[in-house]
Amino acid sequence: METFAASLDTPSVVVDMDLVRANIRRFQAYADANGFKVRPHIKTHKLPLVTDMQLAAGAIGITCQKVSEAEAMVAGSPAVTDVLITYNIVGERKLARLAALARKVRLSVVADSAAVVDGLSAAFADAPPPLRVLVECDTGASRCGVASPEDAAALAMRIAAAPGLAFCGLMTYPPAGGEAAVQAFMTRAKALIEAEGLTVPAISSGGTPTMMHAAEAPVVTEYRPGTYVYNDRSLVARGACGWDDCALTVLATVVSVPTANRAIIDAGSKTLTSDLFGLTGYGHVLGRDDLAIDQLSEEHGRLVSTGPINLAVGDRLRIVPNHACVVTNMVDEVYLVSAGEPTPRAVPVVARGRIW
Amino acid sequence: METFAASLDTPSVVVDMDLVRANIRRFQAYADANGFKVRPHIKTHKLPLVTDMQLAAGAIGITCQKVSEAEAMVAGSPAVTDVLITYNIVGERKLARLAALARKVRLSVVADSAAVVDGLSAAFADAPPPLRVLVECDTGASRCGVASPEDAAALAMRIAAAPGLAFCGLMTYPPAGGEAAVQAFMTRAKALIEAEGLTVPAISSGGTPTMMHAAEAPVVTEYRPGTYVYNDRSLVARGACGWDDCALTVLATVVSVPTANRAIIDAGSKTLTSDLFGLTGYGHVLGRDDLAIDQLSEEHGRLVSTGPINLAVGDRLRIVPNHACVVTNMVDEVYLVSAGEPTPRAVPVVARGRIW
Repeated sequence: METFAASLDTPSVVVDMDLVRANIRRFQAYADANGFKVRPHIKTHKLPLVTDMQLAAGAIGITCQKVSEAEAMVAGSPAVTDVLITYNIVGERKLARLAALARKVRLSVVADSAAVVDGLSAAFADAPPPLRVLVECDTGASRCGVASPEDAAALAMRIAAAPGLAFCGLMTYPPAGGEAAVQAFMTRAKALIEAEGLTVPAISSGGTPTMMHAAEAPVVTEYRPGTYVYNDRSLVARGACGWDDCALTVLATVVSVPTANRAIIDAGSKTLTSDLFGLTGYGHVLGRDDLAIDQLSEEHGRLVSTGPINLAVGDRLRIVPNHACVVTNMVDEVYLVSAGEPTPRAVPVVARGRIW
Repeated sequence: METFAASLDTPSVVVDMDLVRANIRRFQAYADANGFKVRPHIKTHKLPLVTDMQLAAGAIGITCQKVSEAEAMVAGSPAVTDVLITYNIVGERKLARLAALARKVRLSVVADSAAVVDGLSAAFADAPPPLRVLVECDTGASRCGVASPEDAAALAMRIAAAPGLAFCGLMTYPPAGGEAAVQAFMTRAKALIEAEGLTVPAISSGGTPTMMHAAEAPVVTEYRPGTYVYNDRSLVARGACGWDDCALTVLATVVSVPTANRAIIDAGSKTLTSDLFGLTGYGHVLGRDDLAIDQLSEEHGRLVSTGPINLAVGDRLRIVPNHACVVTNMVDEVYLVSAGEPTPRAVPVVARGRIW
């Protein structure tokens, strides 16, 4: 157990900043070598200081999912001057906040329907400069997005014609292994839109699982990885990284060893979350491949082993969670560690719980 | 859609206080009729004002899972004078906080091993009055707890002999349908302990799913329900309540209707959580039995229907989550509504995120 562990109470979320730096550099180098831009999604860290590292490494701006997240990041760092919110903004309250934010930074949003476009236009018609809007496209993930390149072109035209709005490109969240689908959809949509006399300044894709294949969809001009900054068990399971690349871990204490092959830790779903992400079990105990976290309640995690569990009350363990982003959202503070700083540094997760 | 919906942004967690009052009264009446006490677990609401309602209705004190939760509740309400923390407290920092709390209220904790007992004793040996300790027993849930009545008696003797501690009873979290197991384990453990010349002042069981069967284990003197105050989809699925008894709902807005049988709402795992609790899907849309919430990402919930989904961008829905307690923990504020107050009242969830 690393020396920092002794100085922290448990459960605590610990972030290795040396690994964060290496993870940021690796993907920025890949993007630079392949001629596309990086616009990291802040949902993974929710920390202005990590955003600053991403921007310093070459990112062109940031991605947020909600207006309130963007507000927190803009307030938290003067380096944040270019924000894309990859979400349909609906409702008067959110539109008013969006308009206020647009006066502070270069702001873009997405839309996938006439209803969303018309709402944005009503809010920005009398509030120059125009709001930048990208059309969200469904390239196979079956969440939001227009269903076809033809629908994308039609919505692009509606945006271009709408008072207060400027059409600025296309956006998608790709399905697993979906680079070919992204390339085909976006190439066709771009051609249809250009045939109407519009330009397509940006084509934005994203998602850490497929990020090292981003160059296989060369029509994409910018990429929005989020989890890459920390990595997690889901990415190790997909072969996207190794345990040594996982910057975020949960430090936990064994509080009970009721039987020879069962132990209970003080990290449950309030820290690790119930997010399975298609996996079995709720995290990986570093250095203990023989253990499974097979059950969580809110404050208890249950460890089971096939052989003797070889743990005692008071032992401390480090756990790589299934999904780093959702863990960040559970805690008010994370603890930053690095080789150069012997004492963990507590930092508030300023964009935690920003759901509006 | 109720009138309060229009005045709230989404997603928001809404609590119907009329239903809260009815839920509290129903179980208190059952306990009174059957001669046992109620010690509600605050993890479900994390709100001093709901604790005050529970105490006013007849509860003898509260249950918390972590020292930091207890600190928040004691700080939040002068009516909180009797607290049971149903957790093995391990580590110097937590023990120091526990000792400070013991000087403010009548405090009890649990232990299931000599290691935990010895840690408690070391922290309380020189800090009168003695700390009240119950032995946690595993009656079938296979989480924490001593494995047998004989082990319970041995640990009770160790507590009674430990400087700074007072043995005060037995505690369990019962397995589903486990009243007979609770009755058998506790009756045997009590007899063994009394044969050693000790008294067993309290036998504490708990858990909303089985609470209306609590009287089937008459050896139990107090019961610790948590979720009963709000109820949720898991309890409806178990037949413990109906939709009309669910006091906590998530108000969400439709932000996309990409296909004829798919819609996306602005509540994802950051609000509803990924907690499945053995169910399929992530919540129940009130009034729309034909919809399933089949997939969540952090800020998106995907609704699917077999027939036409019949929703439009901007529509608002109320969702009963799978598990109310974990939803409460996601948000900084909840909104209280009641028949007598037309405007929702925002209250901070003061014990949210208290994981220490």
